[in-house]
Amino acid sequence: MKKIINDPKNVVDEMLKGIVAAHPNHVKRLEGFEVLVRAQGPTDKVALVSGGGSGHEPSHGGFVGKGMLDGAVAGAVFTSPTPDQVYEAVKAVDGGKGVLLVIKNYTGDVMNFEIAAEMAEADGIKVEKVVVNDDVAVEDSTWTTGRRGIAGTLFVHKIAGAKAEAGGSLDEVKAVAEKVITNVRSMGMALSPCTVPAAGKPSFTLAENEVEIGMGIHGEPGTHRETLKTANEIVDHLLQKIFDDISLAADDEVAVMVNGLGGTPTMELYVANLRVSEVMKEKGIKIAKTYVGNYMTSLEMAGFSISVIKLDAELKELLLAEANTPALVQ
Amino acid sequence: MKKIINDPKNVVDEMLKGIVAAHPNHVKRLEGFEVLVRAQGPTDKVALVSGGGSGHEPSHGGFVGKGMLDGAVAGAVFTSPTPDQVYEAVKAVDGGKGVLLVIKNYTGDVMNFEIAAEMAEADGIKVEKVVVNDDVAVEDSTWTTGRRGIAGTLFVHKIAGAKAEAGGSLDEVKAVAEKVITNVRSMGMALSPCTVPAAGKPSFTLAENEVEIGMGIHGEPGTHRETLKTANEIVDHLLQKIFDDISLAADDEVAVMVNGLGGTPTMELYVANLRVSEVMKEKGIKIAKTYVGNYMTSLEMAGFSISVIKLDAELKELLLAEANTPALVQ
Repeated sequence: MKKIINDPKNVVDEMLKGIVAAHPNHVKRLEGFEVLVRAQGPTDKVALVSGGGSGHEPSHGGFVGKGMLDGAVAGAVFTSPTPDQVYEAVKAVDGGKGVLLVIKNYTGDVMNFEIAAEMAEADGIKVEKVVVNDDVAVEDSTWTTGRRGIAGTLFVHKIAGAKAEAGGSLDEVKAVAEKVITNVRSMGMALSPCTVPAAGKPSFTLAENEVEIGMGIHGEPGTHRETLKTANEIVDHLLQKIFDDISLAADDEVAVMVNGLGGTPTMELYVANLRVSEVMKEKGIKIAKTYVGNYMTSLEMAGFSISVIKLDAELKELLLAEANTPALVQ
Repeated sequence: MKKIINDPKNVVDEMLKGIVAAHPNHVKRLEGFEVLVRAQGPTDKVALVSGGGSGHEPSHGGFVGKGMLDGAVAGAVFTSPTPDQVYEAVKAVDGGKGVLLVIKNYTGDVMNFEIAAEMAEADGIKVEKVVVNDDVAVEDSTWTTGRRGIAGTLFVHKIAGAKAEAGGSLDEVKAVAEKVITNVRSMGMALSPCTVPAAGKPSFTLAENEVEIGMGIHGEPGTHRETLKTANEIVDHLLQKIFDDISLAADDEVAVMVNGLGGTPTMELYVANLRVSEVMKEKGIKIAKTYVGNYMTSLEMAGFSISVIKLDAELKELLLAEANTPALVQ
């Protein structure tokens, strides 16, 4: 295992400290917990808390800040955060208007965030939650009942975060988050596995020139393995699976995310994005905004995912609103 | 070779088209050339042109936009752009106030940018140039006389770009770029090699658990190979080499870049950044700004570099000024 770390036991703690050291104007550590919150403390608006296992950086701590999240909870690598950590995050960010939990659909995450919500509600904090299940690759998976939540989650953070920033009530922020979830789809593929620091070796292997289509962000199996094809063929396949699942027609407007899984050269993400833009143009679908980069990674896994969200006027306005976080400024 | 590409011959062209497709409000292609320029055309200010071989994305096209570059020239992967491409970029961005060429110190780049400058000067365009040589690892290298230019070049783009945006004359913009070069130092290390698409195989190999210290961004040899140490030990060594080369004392102020080479998990970059911040704190050196991410990559190489720039009031103000480009917004 070749990693720039000190001790696998300390990697999450040191990473969180490294994020705070880099972005002290944006985030601070919730003392004693694996939680990052906004540097200036609770805000007078609905607060958003997300999180999950570590290893997906900059998700989720990199998206704490104006226009997106108020708190991010970091579990051990690829492991759900415990309820007490989520509960502390909720308490820390609540400014009296309530807290929306944005949960990626993994059984452990859903369970632990729900327990935390009950704990906070017992304290009198208003808590609502949404579960993101954007990955069209497979129904049910290694750690999931239903579809997995992957990079499309960023659109929930961005859009619901903007709604909260604009003064939306907890019900309104939850409603727009649900609207994002209804309209966002993603699918990915992997060229290589990744190694959880505490495990010390890759969780699976791929043959030379073999890739996995529909791979999850923790290395969960996808739909199938195949010989590496061209970028255009890969993009066409991933987009077709997305189009099979959500109705998109000429003159519809979308936003796109071409998300690197950690080990993919930026050059290759842009080559993939060219094909995404070509396919959309062929179909007469307008692209309002494109994100290309490492947003929801899987440690050093090579590969990428495509996320597409169908926009209406409300979603578009909120997506394009100002945000100022360590990993996304616009 | 596992890459998300179509044909090695088309990778630079398709990447440039993919960047334009993603960021049409920021950049456009200079038709017929491997050049990206600002979407809105020439500006009424001194213009900055940079570039070099491709494979370092988001450098340099990702930094075209307000407060940074006006044009970026993309050579073949790890290959200097030809003089005619640079010449076309200069002609396209000149708004009458002159053009500064920001060149990384590689023999081919320096030669071809100089020829382009002479061609443009023959047309009556005022052209000045600076050569960035921030890499303290080695004197002279595979493709370089003197020190190499690596990720510290971003500070030249950012600071000289801000000076130009503020209305500085060509001499003033050049002078502040030279001041950055005098005050910035970098050094990196690699855990793994990378593969140039047209070559199809890695340009060198490292044994299991072996790393190269001082590696160049095209895989040029560094100072030595050694067994992988802890993140803290690696950071301490790289910083010591930097401190040996530039005088920094308590109460000095710096900015820091922890730059991923393309295949390094964001998690690991932040672990490294923690140690950078600790060492600076021990020395009483203040950090005004930290950048952590993939800014100047080497395709899928795993590893990172640290850049440190010593700031005075002028450099700090320009560094913190607004920028709005595909890959850096602040």
